[in-house]
Amino acid sequence: MPVHNIVRGAGNKRKLVHPAQLTLLGFLIGIAAGTALLALPISRTGPGGATLVEAFFTAVSAMCVTGHVIVDTPTYWTGFGQVVIMVLIQVGGFGVMTFASIIGIAVVRRLSLRSRITAAAETKSVGFGDVRSLILGVLKISLIIEGIGALILFFWFLLRYGYSVGEAAWFAIFHAVSSFNNAGFALFSNNMISFVDDPVVSLTLCAEIILGGLGFPVIVQLLRHGGNRLKWSMNTRIVIAATPLLLVAGTVYITLIEWNNPATLGPLDWQTKLLAGFFQSVQTRTAGFNSIDIGAMSEASQFGMTALMFIGGGPAGTAGGIKITTFAVLFFILLAEVRGDGVVNVFGKRLSRAVHRQAIAVVLLSVGVVATSTISIMLLSGLPLGPVLFETVSAFGTVGLSEGITPELPVAAQLILAVLMFVGRLGPIGFATALALRERAVLYELPKERPIIG
Amino acid sequence: MPVHNIVRGAGNKRKLVHPAQLTLLGFLIGIAAGTALLALPISRTGPGGATLVEAFFTAVSAMCVTGHVIVDTPTYWTGFGQVVIMVLIQVGGFGVMTFASIIGIAVVRRLSLRSRITAAAETKSVGFGDVRSLILGVLKISLIIEGIGALILFFWFLLRYGYSVGEAAWFAIFHAVSSFNNAGFALFSNNMISFVDDPVVSLTLCAEIILGGLGFPVIVQLLRHGGNRLKWSMNTRIVIAATPLLLVAGTVYITLIEWNNPATLGPLDWQTKLLAGFFQSVQTRTAGFNSIDIGAMSEASQFGMTALMFIGGGPAGTAGGIKITTFAVLFFILLAEVRGDGVVNVFGKRLSRAVHRQAIAVVLLSVGVVATSTISIMLLSGLPLGPVLFETVSAFGTVGLSEGITPELPVAAQLILAVLMFVGRLGPIGFATALALRERAVLYELPKERPIIG
Ligand SMILES: [K+]
Ligand SMILES: [K+]
Repeated sequence: MPVHNIVRGAGNKRKLVHPAQLTLLGFLIGIAAGTALLALPISRTGPGGATLVEAFFTAVSAMCVTGHVIVDTPTYWTGFGQVVIMVLIQVGGFGVMTFASIIGIAVVRRLSLRSRITAAAETKSVGFGDVRSLILGVLKISLIIEGIGALILFFWFLLRYGYSVGEAAWFAIFHAVSSFNNAGFALFSNNMISFVDDPVVSLTLCAEIILGGLGFPVIVQLLRHGGNRLKWSMNTRIVIAATPLLLVAGTVYITLIEWNNPATLGPLDWQTKLLAGFFQSVQTRTAGFNSIDIGAMSEASQFGMTALMFIGGGPAGTAGGIKITTFAVLFFILLAEVRGDGVVNVFGKRLSRAVHRQAIAVVLLSVGVVATSTISIMLLSGLPLGPVLFETVSAFGTVGLSEGITPELPVAAQLILAVLMFVGRLGPIGFATALALRERAVLYELPKERPIIG
Repeated sequence: MPVHNIVRGAGNKRKLVHPAQLTLLGFLIGIAAGTALLALPISRTGPGGATLVEAFFTAVSAMCVTGHVIVDTPTYWTGFGQVVIMVLIQVGGFGVMTFASIIGIAVVRRLSLRSRITAAAETKSVGFGDVRSLILGVLKISLIIEGIGALILFFWFLLRYGYSVGEAAWFAIFHAVSSFNNAGFALFSNNMISFVDDPVVSLTLCAEIILGGLGFPVIVQLLRHGGNRLKWSMNTRIVIAATPLLLVAGTVYITLIEWNNPATLGPLDWQTKLLAGFFQSVQTRTAGFNSIDIGAMSEASQFGMTALMFIGGGPAGTAGGIKITTFAVLFFILLAEVRGDGVVNVFGKRLSRAVHRQAIAVVLLSVGVVATSTISIMLLSGLPLGPVLFETVSAFGTVGLSEGITPELPVAAQLILAVLMFVGRLGPIGFATALALRERAVLYELPKERPIIG
């Protein structure tokens, strides 16, 4: 089914819904199969199989590339179980990236065709003629980036840490897949805390995470046009501008607050403090590894990370959250208002007015979902706001960072987190797409009126 | 200076800025005078005068009708000090109501004149020819509503509780003023906890609070047109529809969660549970009295109240927060998006597109201000997210409800709360007005483009 057809078949609902239905079905099948496989005795190191809740929670967490765990990945699951988890991560990350790219490009193209002005530029800039070549493109880019990361990690594990060839290869591949797909699953019981002062492991994971989080359309434009910004779409410009800003802001914030915390950065030298600050900042974009104890961080750091996790990464990538572009749209609206502009211009283009409303709708619904889940889990567990909000935003943003409370939550609360991962993974994309595809010309307008604001 | 001139003098910035400058100046003078008077030894019961921080914090809290306290109002201040507090409350509440009404009506009229369609209806519906008669109108309505409340309380204190005539009169007047102006200052050390099962005191205060929180333009329209909804403005319709919804939602939420809490509603009979649930729900609109121990409520209740306090009351009244209308605008945008409407229609009128952006701007800035203060106070005090967020939202929304931590905060944190009350009192009105008055026609538009959302 050529993308071109999806785009041109604007009046044909069946074709448009197709990729969304396929993705939803794929996720449900993946989760069901993952749950079944993980519940087998062969997946668990201990006697018997995992409980249904453990298998289901882990399958959802892997498929939705979140990384929240209620059992310890390296000790609870066998090598077979870990392979199942890795495959789920790869399929889940690939699935969302493909789906969001197809749909995102279709929306941008179809709606741009109306204005006829940017259509040519947009189409050329992404320019995959059909779904098959787009899928192959996503696959190729994923495997190449994961492959490079895995190679670096392989040689480092082999030479620096003296792993056997087989061990080094397995650990390298698993963590490359887990990081590029922003999954945050680790094969170490303390996640990445042992590597807090290892720049090779830390920065390789960070590079994978950031690239996966930029999103496929951005990577493609960077590969095609490099630094030629005139050819970048608004989407690429926003993601490329905002990602470093968020990363630096997070690094400065975390490093400053935790500088003297004896349980986190306190005992480290200043280079390692910076490395660890940067590493945790990158994790909010939304990988979910940790190289210091998240639960031991100051409440202020945790709250700041909660905000960053809610924003998340770039659209049509492996990252979660409301997405950098959604956040940026709200920011540019605020900026335009403060400047007194009647329209919102972003990097020399006008931001479509329909997008204003869509961004508000996505953010409001996301806030509503997170608030409802937070209140429910507070009532179920009796835990205070800070840690519960951290955990729900982390699940909704498919981050997987944890203050350590998730394994101890009542089963009902764990199931809420599982639903939240699923909703957080597919909800914003699906909702925003549905809104965008339903945009229509206004045929008549009622007389205008305004209430008092503020 | 006739309102009409403000409205017609659209090109004349001096006249438009005038009431805002006057209000700002008035608040600063009021706070300075209040601080000076409260620092006098005659204001304090103990030896010597209050400290500068105590006097300043109390003056800001009274003038901004918040009700946050760092010293106990009935025992720390003398009768003289309490009169100073009451006068500040009356002046502050009256000042904001007048300012917001003048400015709000000017904005609505001036911008409605552009469309020419609703101008006549809007102008007639409020219809104060000049500022003097508007000020007199606010004064008359305030004094009448406060007077009725004071009379009820006077006879009740006299007959039911056996106060002397003087005592009954003083307590009645103080609490009527404090409640209509949504100030939340009480002359009882445990605030209103002694009256938790007294429906007369509870409901009289609630009625004053709700009326003050509807806002002057709504009260005027109700007096003029009664139940004739066709003549109501969009502002009145939103406030009248949303206020009961928020009150009922808050009552149900608080009553259900606290039903069995032994430290709050647990020991009460079911009628008193409902009365107390309703009473605390009303306080988030944004009076700040309490008839149960707020600090002993479940974290989930406190979080829900935080959200309600952030929303606040109707515009151009004595309530604070981002205002019900601002929240409703976002809600109606979400509703329109979910329905797939290209425009946002509210009660049969189209919501001006500029208002969409203004509401987003007000909410984003408010979230930014609250988040920054929350993080600062967490760092200064080492306290966890839940109670600090409650306290900052309570200050920003000029609510004054407290979990009891404010008196123990470091001075720097108390000063942040003082600034927050001031910013919360005048910021949203001033900011939204500045935005609205700068609205201008768009002369040219750049080509349109859209990023991927969600
Ligand atoms: K993750
Ligand atoms: K108040």
